[in-house]
Order: sequence, then structure tokens, then C-alpha cells
Amino acid sequence: MEFTKHLQYFQSILSNRCFVDQENLYKYSKDETEDISVLPIAVLKPKTTQEVAAILKYCNTHKIAVTPQGARTGLSGGAIPHEGSIAMSMEYFNNILEIDEKNHQVTTEPGVITEVLQNAVKEKGLFYPPDPASKGSCFIGGNVAENSGGPKAVKYGVTNAYVLNLEVVLPNGEIIWTGANTLKNSTGYNLTQLIVGSEGTLAVITKIVLRLIPHPTDNLLMLVPFFKATEACEAVAAIFRKGITPSGLEFMEKDALNLAKAFTGDEKIEVKENHEAHLLIEVDGFDKKVLFKECEQIMEVLGEFNTDEILFAEDEAQKNSLWNLRRKVGEAVKAHSTYKEEDTVVPRYELPQLLSGVKSIGKKYGFQSVCYGHAGDGNLHVNILKGDLTAQQWEDDLPKAITEIFELTKKLGGTLSGEHGIGLVQKQYMPIVFNEVQLNLMKNIKNLFDPNNILNPGKIVS
Amino acid sequence: MEFTKHLQYFQSILSNRCFVDQENLYKYSKDETEDISVLPIAVLKPKTTQEVAAILKYCNTHKIAVTPQGARTGLSGGAIPHEGSIAMSMEYFNNILEIDEKNHQVTTEPGVITEVLQNAVKEKGLFYPPDPASKGSCFIGGNVAENSGGPKAVKYGVTNAYVLNLEVVLPNGEIIWTGANTLKNSTGYNLTQLIVGSEGTLAVITKIVLRLIPHPTDNLLMLVPFFKATEACEAVAAIFRKGITPSGLEFMEKDALNLAKAFTGDEKIEVKENHEAHLLIEVDGFDKKVLFKECEQIMEVLGEFNTDEILFAEDEAQKNSLWNLRRKVGEAVKAHSTYKEEDTVVPRYELPQLLSGVKSIGKKYGFQSVCYGHAGDGNLHVNILKGDLTAQQWEDDLPKAITEIFELTKKLGGTLSGEHGIGLVQKQYMPIVFNEVQLNLMKNIKNLFDPNNILNPGKIVS
Repeated sequence: MEFTKHLQYFQSILSNRCFVDQENLYKYSKDETEDISVLPIAVLKPKTTQEVAAILKYCNTHKIAVTPQGARTGLSGGAIPHEGSIAMSMEYFNNILEIDEKNHQVTTEPGVITEVLQNAVKEKGLFYPPDPASKGSCFIGGNVAENSGGPKAVKYGVTNAYVLNLEVVLPNGEIIWTGANTLKNSTGYNLTQLIVGSEGTLAVITKIVLRLIPHPTDNLLMLVPFFKATEACEAVAAIFRKGITPSGLEFMEKDALNLAKAFTGDEKIEVKENHEAHLLIEVDGFDKKVLFKECEQIMEVLGEFNTDEILFAEDEAQKNSLWNLRRKVGEAVKAHSTYKEEDTVVPRYELPQLLSGVKSIGKKYGFQSVCYGHAGDGNLHVNILKGDLTAQQWEDDLPKAITEIFELTKKLGGTLSGEHGIGLVQKQYMPIVFNEVQLNLMKNIKNLFDPNNILNPGKIVS
Repeated sequence: MEFTKHLQYFQSILSNRCFVDQENLYKYSKDETEDISVLPIAVLKPKTTQEVAAILKYCNTHKIAVTPQGARTGLSGGAIPHEGSIAMSMEYFNNILEIDEKNHQVTTEPGVITEVLQNAVKEKGLFYPPDPASKGSCFIGGNVAENSGGPKAVKYGVTNAYVLNLEVVLPNGEIIWTGANTLKNSTGYNLTQLIVGSEGTLAVITKIVLRLIPHPTDNLLMLVPFFKATEACEAVAAIFRKGITPSGLEFMEKDALNLAKAFTGDEKIEVKENHEAHLLIEVDGFDKKVLFKECEQIMEVLGEFNTDEILFAEDEAQKNSLWNLRRKVGEAVKAHSTYKEEDTVVPRYELPQLLSGVKSIGKKYGFQSVCYGHAGDGNLHVNILKGDLTAQQWEDDLPKAITEIFELTKKLGGTLSGEHGIGLVQKQYMPIVFNEVQLNLMKNIKNLFDPNNILNPGKIVS
């Protein structure tokens, strides 16, 4: 009865962009996080900031929970509805509003696919570097909400390094800009960076102003097989110590690369039994000669380690194929087995310690793990496979094992998530890295923005 | 009586590092902001985080205001004591704690002089780019508090791009770290970036972890005279559109350069009567050939404008001399006349509009202005000179003129401060760029951290 009244109101605002049919409720009940699914009570698809404001104002008054959703490609459950909440999909906010070539900026709505945005600005010679593995399907708004990374982050930084200004709707329906369209800004508290990475819990993003940089004109890519996985990790820090900053420095365990090969059907790369891990190394810039020189320097560093024959990508097709293998590892693991992914991040020199620690913990609890990720940033995706574990073991032991992995991460100077966010599924581990004072600060910030706890409740902090 | 009791407590914590003599009270009553001076009731100089925590806890309980101070080189009055407040100087926090060469990070106390820090990491081949004009005297902690910039920001970003993690003391005396020592972090709200630029109003910074990058090995510097100041501004955007990112792109009006010449006594540069403005352009990198090529491309762009003969710095001495002239403009203006400095920032293509608008406003109110700054970032320092204006005119008209300048700045997509902060003297202009909702959000954030309003009261928001 109550719900019918609410629905009538939403329909008065959105007309036929309100959905309560099972197919839609199911579709919007989940993101790419494992197998979790919570049906929303309705799916709303606003098209304008004013519509978002009207919905939030109404929901705030009536204490109805709202879960904002991007493309639902997230891996921490940030877009999974709360019990009894409305799902608010931002998919109709799909316009790039202005590419400001003169100022190297773009103003976009949040529902634009990241790669679409990248291609649009590339046509103007401009570059938006952050490129999560899901760039072909994820939304730029979701990237801002999660502070997403990707392979290019090692040279160019993650999403937050590009966000200049945001139009957001606060939970009470008020619309504000968080900053200014300037490269520098020391004017009051940094509301922009408070919203970036807040996973839709503080405000709904409706417009995004991003800075852009000149698009590099050249790049070189190589795939390096290592006989020892920890040596691959050690080589990463050694390359940076040489003063080189690659535009990609990706680590893949043997199993990761093999699963991606099987998943994509792209079997061109030979992975030998004794290749414990590979590094995928890219350099980019504006001068091929410089890039060749950088590659030579990298080769010099690699000479200090036990590597097998290095593969240089010969053309665009081979580059795309290598990057595609890397990008598909996540999906390949998911298709292979029930799994749980952890997005550990440590100072990069600590990566070998993290890797061997993860393996020891796996041995202790009897699980296999597939590790890969952005080694240049110290960001290792640890995929724990269910494999032969019983459901009971999986349920009882997994949280213990994950706790041990995060305790190790913390000990090494790192933290829980490099780029996937905390969302729903990592929330329980927050006390490993934050004490009561820190957690209370975060809770109080949430409460300040959203006193009725209507916006994406149950995420990050409770 | 009450005060004697407080002082006894502070002495019990700090022993002989409490000062109430007139000389010290006067010394710590001001920063580099115009001629404002407010005597503190005492000057405290803690040496450890625990001492800071004890002082804040006591002051919070007894509702005593505390103004944290770095090197007091700020230009917005952020370190000027509040009536009846204690000045807490961080000058004894002057140790670089660890240069982590393996991870390209440095952990430092806040009272280290920025240039000292830069030189220390440079010895290891590492680079901390942000370089405010006051780098030889300002503290790194003040840079973090104000989110300082400097000439290198155009290529390398401002302070906040380098801050990974902070140890801070909250107003109630609790000590927390704000993040982790990692290059990526999507673990809860970004407390680190909330503290950066908060001008000592939310917490006192006691340790800083900064990321570092490889130090460029080469640079080239040129000084370009323009017959039209607005053309100099236009050339700035044109250089970036060419795909070049200089490591410095500084604008100086004729008067700015002439004042700096007179102030430094360095008269080697000839400034002709019809040189309305100069650009100082630097490129840096790891390969001299590439830099020469970039300079050629810049020359090509400059060919589209009316410039006089370009001066290439021939050696380190000449580079230092040119940079010194640029860095001394601020002090030179200050020594020349009573003045008021505005730290306007706009999207960089709007710089010519800003410059000519400032000149029109000057004509209207009858004041002369000297403009210079980080043109590559759209950050123009507007120095309004008192000159022949009466004290009455100065008092009555100046705020009106500044309001008009900021209204123009806002209209051009910009804001009040690019790198100097709001502090005390720009606070009254905040409603030009922020509405009630935005200002209330900031006030509530302040209130959340500091419910008794003891920490640097009267700054940013009231």
C-alpha cells in the first residue's frame, strides 16, 4: 500500500522509467561481485539531475534506501542493493557534455562507458589514462565512485588524479558542485576528493569534470617470463629504482595467464611449465627512440634476474592480444571456479613478501590462489579458489585466511583495497586496518552527509 | 590566574619550550600576509606527537584556541593567531625520518624546510616536485596544510598529488594515520585528502609520507618577451594544445619583472619599454635531445605570436638567476608598496580574459596591479598596489574591487585560490564561489573534527 504510493510518486517523476518486474529486479540485484544478489524493491532510471534530486528528496523524507548503480561491474559489492532499497541506475546519464580542447578538460555524465569517453577524447589528441580491466563496459561514474585504477595508474595515477569537479546530489536532494574546473584549488575543504572513492554513500554523482593530458603517440610492449614468481616481483621495484616509469607493469602468475589463454581461446603465447610468472611491461611517450632506449634500460635491469626469452609485441594486433589476455584474467578465474578476490595493495618493494605470504597462508588453509595485478603499484589481486574445499571449509576458513592475508598486507605498510573499494564484501575487514577513532571519523562523515542513512546503506562502514 | 594554571600545565609537558615574552609573542603573531598581527597568549614548541596530543587534549578540555604554525610564510593568514589563542609552532618537528629508496617514498616531520627535503631526496636520485616560491624557508607541513603549488605544478601537480599518508593529532588529542603508504588506496573515505589543504583547522599534522619520482636529469629554460601581455597568456594555452607539457610556464608582467630586478639587484635581463610581459618556460626530462626537440616545438608555437628575442639560459648560473627573479617577484612587490595579493585561478585558456578583466577593474577603481604567476595552471597572482590611493579609498574600495575580480574568476570557471589557501583574509569572499549548502557542508566537517572550535578558529569558514 505504502509502496504503491511511493511507486506512483516515482512514476510521476520518471514516467515509464520505473521498473518492478522480476526480470529487471533480478538484473539490478547484483554486480560482478561473486554470487551475491539482493533484489531491489524497484529499479529507477533517472535522466536528469533534477530527477535524481526529486527522487532523493522524496526517499529522504520517507526513509527509503537508494542504491546508486553504474554499470554494475564492481568487484566489492558497492552496487548491490540493500534489503528493501531502490536501485537507481545511472545508465541514461550517457552523454559526454563537452570536450574542452582549449583547456584539456572533458565534462561528462556518469553513465558514459569509460572506453567510449577515452576514444572520444583521443580523437582530439587527448588522453584520459585510468583504464580498469572492465573499461569496455564500466561507467566513468562508477570509476569515480570507486576511485578505480588499471594498468596505466603506475605512470599516470588513478581516477582521483583526473577529477577536477563534480556535480552531485546530496541525500536531501540538494544539488552542489564540489569544486572548480581548475588544475589547482586551495579554496576550502576538498569536497571533490571526499566524494571520489566514497562508493555512492555520500552523494550521487551527476556530472564529472576531468582533466586530460596530451595522448602519447607511441608505445612498446614486452612480455617477460620468469622462472621464479618472487623474482618477477623483485624486478618490478628494480625497474623503478633505475629511474624508469613504465606506463604498465603487470604481474601474472602462470595459472593466471593459462586461465586467460583458455578463456579467450588465444593460445599464441607459449607458457612453459617452469615459467612461474610473467611481467607485461609497457612504455609510452612521444618519441620512439626514447622508448627504445627505455626498453634497453629495462632489459639491462632484467638481465640481473633469471628470465626466459622476452617477447616484444611486433604490431598493434599483438599488443592488443597481450593486453586482452591480461585484462581477461579476472573473468577467466571467475569462469573457472568459485572464488573470492582480494585487492591487496602494499608499497611495491614489499610485493614479493606479500606474494610468498599469500602462498604460505594458502598452504595452511589448503586453498589454491591465483595472483596477478598491477605490480608497479604494489597492487596484487589475490584470487582464492574454492577448488576441492568443502562448503563448510569455504565458509569457516575463508574469512580466517583473508584476515591473515590482510594482517600481512597491513604489516607490510599496505591496506585492504587498491582500486576495487570496500563496498559490501570487504567491510568486515575494515577493523584490521582502521581503529575505532578512524572508523568513527568515517561513520561521522557518512552521518553528516546522510543522517537518515538512505544512500547506499550497508557499504564501507555500518 | 586561570592562564597561570594553563601555563604551568604546558610547562609540565614542554619544560622550557613555552614562551610568553613579548619578543616571541610578536614573532609568532604573524605570517607573510600583509601587515596583520595578532599576539598569541603563549608560544608552544612541541617536539613529539605525544606532546602535541597532550596540548590539544588539554586545550580541548579547557576550550583554549590553538593556532598551529609552520614557517609562517603563508599569504592568506592561515597561521595568524586568533584573539586569545596559543601559537603552536611545529619548528622542532624538523627531522626527515626515512628516505625509502626502495619504494620511492619519504617519511618526514612537518617542520622540515621544503628545499631541505628536496635536496635530501635528490641525493638519492629522487624528486619531490612541489616548489612554492618560499621553498627555501617554508615547511613541508605548511605546504600540506595549504596544498601548496609552485612552478613545477604545471607538469607534476601540487602537493596533494604526493601525499600518501599523514599522522595527525585530532583536536581531542587522539592520534591517527589517515591512510596507508601505498600508491593506490580505495579503502574508505579519503581522510588524507580531507586534511591536505585544510589549513590546520581539522587536525595537526605530525608525520607526512610522500611519494617521490625519479629526478629528471636535464632541463632547458627560456625567457620570452611579448609585446602584448594578453598574447603571452594566449601562447600558454597554445603550447599545451601542441601536446607539450613544460615543467614550468610562468607569466610576469613588465612591472613584476622590473620590480624583481630592482629588488634582487640582478639587472642582467634587459626589459624594454614595449615588453608588456614575459613567459619563463622550462622543459625537463631525461634526454637532452628530446628537450631540444620540445623547445623547437615551443618555438614554432611562439612564432605565431609577436615576441621579441628569446633568451635561452646558457648555464646553471643563468637558470638560477632567471628562476630567482621569478621567485622574488612576490617579495619585491611587498617591499615596493602596500598591496593586497589575490591568488586567482581559472581554466588556463581563460587567462587572457582574466588579465584584461583585472586591468579594467583596476581602471574603474583607480588602482595599479602587478600580475604574475603560474600561467600553465591558469593561476594568476594579482597584486593590487595601494600606490596613491588614500587610506579611505583603500579601505572602502578594495573589498569591492576584489569582489569584482573574484566574480569574474568564477564566471570564467575558476575560484578564489589556486595555492595560497583561504585562511583569514579570503574568508569573506567564500560566498562568491560557494552557496549556503556548500558552506554548511564545510562548516559541518569542521564541526565534526573540532566540535569545540579550538583548532585554528576563524579560518576558512566561520
